[in-house]
Amino acid sequence: MTDLQPATPSATEREAEVGAPVDHGVAHMKWWGWGVEGVAFHHDDKPAFAPFVKSIVGVELSAGAHDTGLDFASLEVPATTAPDAVLDALRGAVGEDSVDVSDHDRVVHTYGKSIRDLIRIRRGVLRRVPDVVVYPADEAEVQAVVALAAEHDLVLIPFGGGSNIVGSLEPQPEEVRPVVSLDMGRLDKVLDIDEDGGLARIQAGGQGPHLEEQLNARGWTLGHFPDSFTHSTLGGWVATRSSGMQSDKYGDIADITKGLRVVRPDGVVVIRAVPSASTGPSLREMVIGSEGRLGVITEVTAQVHRLPEKREILAYLFPSWHDGLAAMQAIAESDAHPSVTRVSDAHETRFSFATSKESKGASKVVMDGLQKVLRLRGWDTDQMCLSFIGYEGSPEHVAYTQKIVAKIVRQNRGIGVGKGPGALYDQKKFDTPYLRDFFMDHGGAADVSETAAPWSKLRLVSSRVYAEANKAFDRIGRQGWIMGHLSHSYHSGACLYFTFAFEHGEDAEGEYDVVKQAIQQAFIDTGATVSHHHGVGIEHTPWLAQDVSPEGVAVMQGLFDSADPGRHFNPGKVTGA
Amino acid sequence: MTDLQPATPSATEREAEVGAPVDHGVAHMKWWGWGVEGVAFHHDDKPAFAPFVKSIVGVELSAGAHDTGLDFASLEVPATTAPDAVLDALRGAVGEDSVDVSDHDRVVHTYGKSIRDLIRIRRGVLRRVPDVVVYPADEAEVQAVVALAAEHDLVLIPFGGGSNIVGSLEPQPEEVRPVVSLDMGRLDKVLDIDEDGGLARIQAGGQGPHLEEQLNARGWTLGHFPDSFTHSTLGGWVATRSSGMQSDKYGDIADITKGLRVVRPDGVVVIRAVPSASTGPSLREMVIGSEGRLGVITEVTAQVHRLPEKREILAYLFPSWHDGLAAMQAIAESDAHPSVTRVSDAHETRFSFATSKESKGASKVVMDGLQKVLRLRGWDTDQMCLSFIGYEGSPEHVAYTQKIVAKIVRQNRGIGVGKGPGALYDQKKFDTPYLRDFFMDHGGAADVSETAAPWSKLRLVSSRVYAEANKAFDRIGRQGWIMGHLSHSYHSGACLYFTFAFEHGEDAEGEYDVVKQAIQQAFIDTGATVSHHHGVGIEHTPWLAQDVSPEGVAVMQGLFDSADPGRHFNPGKVTGA
Repeated sequence: MTDLQPATPSATEREAEVGAPVDHGVAHMKWWGWGVEGVAFHHDDKPAFAPFVKSIVGVELSAGAHDTGLDFASLEVPATTAPDAVLDALRGAVGEDSVDVSDHDRVVHTYGKSIRDLIRIRRGVLRRVPDVVVYPADEAEVQAVVALAAEHDLVLIPFGGGSNIVGSLEPQPEEVRPVVSLDMGRLDKVLDIDEDGGLARIQAGGQGPHLEEQLNARGWTLGHFPDSFTHSTLGGWVATRSSGMQSDKYGDIADITKGLRVVRPDGVVVIRAVPSASTGPSLREMVIGSEGRLGVITEVTAQVHRLPEKREILAYLFPSWHDGLAAMQAIAESDAHPSVTRVSDAHETRFSFATSKESKGASKVVMDGLQKVLRLRGWDTDQMCLSFIGYEGSPEHVAYTQKIVAKIVRQNRGIGVGKGPGALYDQKKFDTPYLRDFFMDHGGAADVSETAAPWSKLRLVSSRVYAEANKAFDRIGRQGWIMGHLSHSYHSGACLYFTFAFEHGEDAEGEYDVVKQAIQQAFIDTGATVSHHHGVGIEHTPWLAQDVSPEGVAVMQGLFDSADPGRHFNPGKVTGA
Repeated sequence: MTDLQPATPSATEREAEVGAPVDHGVAHMKWWGWGVEGVAFHHDDKPAFAPFVKSIVGVELSAGAHDTGLDFASLEVPATTAPDAVLDALRGAVGEDSVDVSDHDRVVHTYGKSIRDLIRIRRGVLRRVPDVVVYPADEAEVQAVVALAAEHDLVLIPFGGGSNIVGSLEPQPEEVRPVVSLDMGRLDKVLDIDEDGGLARIQAGGQGPHLEEQLNARGWTLGHFPDSFTHSTLGGWVATRSSGMQSDKYGDIADITKGLRVVRPDGVVVIRAVPSASTGPSLREMVIGSEGRLGVITEVTAQVHRLPEKREILAYLFPSWHDGLAAMQAIAESDAHPSVTRVSDAHETRFSFATSKESKGASKVVMDGLQKVLRLRGWDTDQMCLSFIGYEGSPEHVAYTQKIVAKIVRQNRGIGVGKGPGALYDQKKFDTPYLRDFFMDHGGAADVSETAAPWSKLRLVSSRVYAEANKAFDRIGRQGWIMGHLSHSYHSGACLYFTFAFEHGEDAEGEYDVVKQAIQQAFIDTGATVSHHHGVGIEHTPWLAQDVSPEGVAVMQGLFDSADPGRHFNPGKVTGA
């Protein structure tokens, strides 16, 4: 990870003082932020970064990795309310060592990693913490825990990598029953690969890198690389209808998921892996996006692909957002089948250039040459948009696709800028959440909202989001920044992904709400959906009825109520009831 | 339609004697069989056909188009049991002229076109006939009818083109409440096309040719061509999770369907057309395949495509089924993206050659030359398999794809045989159901069963189906025939489509049951699904729990019960309860 370095160890050291967490064989992220302990973002080799951030949101960034000053020992963690009988029963189900009531483990399982979650955890706001964390070893142990849920009236919240940003993981604040966080991390194996059809039976709790490692070793890839990849799980991707950066080739998780096993109190829903089926309303598609409400996903049979012979990401520049969008649309409708289509708007492009390392030597010569070319073409470089197109397959196929794309780029006034930026993007693509933590260390708040809409509406969605976000920044009286990109192209439209940031005040959550609500409402009002790939959780529930109609929510609620009359499975998520 | 000709008009004439049906502006098929009145299959120009049929199932076919000898007047049609209050209320909802209680209309709406349906209707077996047929003009009238369902405790069965072969359209025999067949045929318009994203708002009741005509006129195509295309509707395709012959390019109906409107008693479920969404369990995918049980589909926003610049179907021959399957798998995994992949097994290939017109002149020279080539290669021509691969797109893309396919064909010992057979296939592809009626005129019974499975299992599925069908033919003491093809390829597997035929005895339905059950059970036992694209209805219900697990059926049943506690919407379909 090119932008990361070892962090000042203060927080980690302080934590060690209160006792190291018990090792259940499952890796967790920092209790207070993203990613691996001891790794942090810095901008020491990016001379343009701090001035740029200062200019867009007024935040002064320090050099080096920052000390968060956070102290686990200072948290007031509510004690577990699980009766001994419940804890004993759980220990009977999964074994003594796989039941954890420690403060550290329960705090790690309380929230996901949304900006709201990070604001709360940094401020020590803990309302309803899970009473106990269990680590089943296999499906049989999951079944045993699920059986206890009915017997002891427990609430079960399945937990994957903990990267969720829509509140799917937190217990309802008013919940009085014992809340069990069901950590799926020990179910992390690729069980079997059908080498003919590329169908891999994979346990639900495996995190991205570990699964790809197992698959790659046998020549296969899942091809699913969401931003959260390094700290999210297959089960989590399915439960939230995730989509990865290379979805243009590999599909969304809904396309990748062929078979499923879902543990429920009365049995296991087993959906056999077939390429397509007409057997009634799709159970597979009910489970995908169910966020734990229909039971516990223990196993997924996923479409995997042979590792491509060749893989390349090329960068392009367009003189405007309009041109970039038009090119992406033309590519989606063409005979080309690239693996990635992505174009940043002018704001995000400026941000990307600001996070570049200082150009030196040959690289500086190239950059200077590029600037000259663009000026000669009469471009306003403040308006230009950076695009990445990915290519995978045989060398012939890569060449064939690149030729189609090159023509479309030219027709839309764009120019190719080679492999360098794409390779860099490929290296740094999972680093952004570390940057957010660093930004928060300096009083900043940043989060994302993303959506999907038909091609005909994307310009409107984008301009409305900018207008509404800026109005919201005005309302909270903050200098704010919004930027976006298009990714995940389909024949009918694409995903638009926005990142917003501002220097927050005392009421950080309230300020976030104002901005987030403005953006989500802009999605709905322009015909876009509430979320393309982050799910609903509780964060997006207020817009669900506007998206899928009140009667649609009623049908969904009927499904949840009939499937879980005792409200044992992550109640309140998605529909709010 | 190359194999069809005007029929002996006896049945139609006799029908005229009992009074011509009222014209509601909706085209229906023959009350006793497939397709347009006055059109029938003949084999006068196919000298090999009758001897071939004689050899495989022992049935003697007459020349010319056969007189079915069927007489509508001889049917004993149960009288409507709908109270006047109900009929008056329906007339109030849709208008006097759009409510039909005539015997003819009610019989036309009693069954679909499965072999069981045709056996019953030809024998005058009518147990529970709909009490009344209504023809709403628009969604508002559908809403009015749906409102009456709750008020008067009615059963509503949505009716599209009437081509269903799994029993989705017939009322439950024990139903004592008034049964209303809701004919959607007047909602047949393409309302709007978003020319940017290729998203067409289309009413649910339009039949295939009429919809394509409207789309083609503006340069677009839906690209959905199921065997039933000429007599089935968009709403029917969605309700049964249909798939068309060109699904390799255009997707199954589940892929094509982006937005939906579904009328329910408490409101309309409106699913906005977005390319992809992560908003909870997919309502869209619950409605697809719901066979009327969640409400009435009135409108679909479908992905449409620009009419391709070039379109070509090439034929290939493989020395064996094994080679043909291997080639299709290699194509599915390659960088090629053809629009059609299809290979017939040896039996179906022999059937295809037997239905060819007599070779004359140039065509005879080519055929003789081909025979010579195959003999020189040492092929057993009884084992060879005919394949069709479709290509669509720019001329460059067609050439590029053909080159990839040609290499794969060579690698799998196949040879190309040009455009001729493909063009013929393209012309005749919708004629097979007429052939079945002709076969029935001569005492034969024929139907289809199809499934989907991973590539690794297709050979096993195929051989097991053959073995079990042949055992079943032995059990019923009939000379039977089974043949199959692969179509609809996916990265993970494909659809296998089987046609079976035999000369039936007195207990035609019972004999059919034995064969059908043997084939369906073979699907299940080899890891294949109950149906790839014909839905469940009541015909496939016995295997549903084996396919999606008993707990899966329980979840599905919960959805139906919660969405329709009064059991007004096509009760009993899919799950049987």
